[in-house]
Amino acid sequence: AVAKSLAIGEGSVGVGVDHELISAVPSSNPTFVLRNFTDAEITYCRSQSAPAASFAARWAGKEAVFKSLGVASKGAAAAMKDIEILPNEAGVPSVRLHGDALSAAQSKGVSKVHLSLSHSENVAIAFAQAVSS
Amino acid sequence: AVAKSLAIGEGSVGVGVDHELISAVPSSNPTFVLRNFTDAEITYCRSQSAPAASFAARWAGKEAVFKSLGVASKGAAAAMKDIEILPNEAGVPSVRLHGDALSAAQSKGVSKVHLSLSHSENVAIAFAQAVSS
Amino acid sequence: AVAKSLAIGEGSVGVGVDHELISAVPSSNPTFVLRNFTDAEITYCRSQSAPAASFAARWAGKEAVFKSLGVASKGAAAAMKDIEILPNEAGVPSVRLHGDALSAAQSKGVSKVHLSLSHSENVAIAFAQAVSS
Repeated sequence: AVAKSLAIGEGSVGVGVDHELISAVPSSNPTFVLRNFTDAEITYCRSQSAPAASFAARWAGKEAVFKSLGVASKGAAAAMKDIEILPNEAGVPSVRLHGDALSAAQSKGVSKVHLSLSHSENVAIAFAQAVSS
Repeated sequence: AVAKSLAIGEGSVGVGVDHELISAVPSSNPTFVLRNFTDAEITYCRSQSAPAASFAARWAGKEAVFKSLGVASKGAAAAMKDIEILPNEAGVPSVRLHGDALSAAQSKGVSKVHLSLSHSENVAIAFAQAVSS
Repeated sequence: AVAKSLAIGEGSVGVGVDHELISAVPSSNPTFVLRNFTDAEITYCRSQSAPAASFAARWAGKEAVFKSLGVASKGAAAAMKDIEILPNEAGVPSVRLHGDALSAAQSKGVSKVHLSLSHSENVAIAFAQAVSS
């Protein structure tokens, strides 16, 4: 009963914030896009009314998720593609981790990352919270 | 004793971020204001040194709270007035939910929404975290 | 066993967000810097490639941490130096509280404050979450 009850209460492992000028995210560069976004993310962003804003918000989201995991600076080799952000059935951005990002999360006891995105005409902002169950 | 202890640890249900250009929030439009803000919010914002910034910060706050609840896209019919944000005795913005927003929160097990607001000369930013007890 | 298990699940006590124009934080004013930053913070910020951005991000961080504690408006007497932000071994900004800030945190049952910082060319944003264990 205790264990079951405890599963209700998630613990906060870390938080992450990022903001980006939409014009600074090279979303019209195919090499950048293919290296950093999954096929499903690309399809989703291109279907939106403002694809550049969608890519920028998602890019800020990946950075925020990365920060929330509290792992050491990633450098050029980080696979941001391993942090996948897609809307769930309610339209809420949902995070799925793969590869190294998943390993990092598991080593920290992170079971879920909550994420929210916001963009205006010029700027995208993301906030992430990594939680343990 | 267990139940009492567990009540101490809140679980994170969702997060929400929003930012708005202060000039983009039509706070001098009475129809917009009356539709989206409660009487107490209007009185409070108009008493501040920069009413437009107060309305914009609160508007961003309502959007962030809405996002933190993780419910489906609201559309034009959403009653943002149901998300009321007023300072508590320490000056901290505190969220009180009414109507549909309250129902949505209860269906998700949300017992409280933490909120913080920030505004500079041009921009308002809000962050919300919905928690269960 | 219950107490030990409960320590896993941190509860959220409050959140704080702040953003600052980098140009609006007087980081080249020695009086401002010495009053608000610890020696270790000053050494760290001055070692960075963009010291003004580092000081501004840290300043936003102190404001966000202060807000997350949910205490009454600070006024001019607040010792922002009591909120010290230094990178941990993984480069993640870590919060250490001293003096009045520590007392305020303890009175609220706050055992840790998670923090994330972000800056672009012109703007610094910080998000803080105060948690209890």
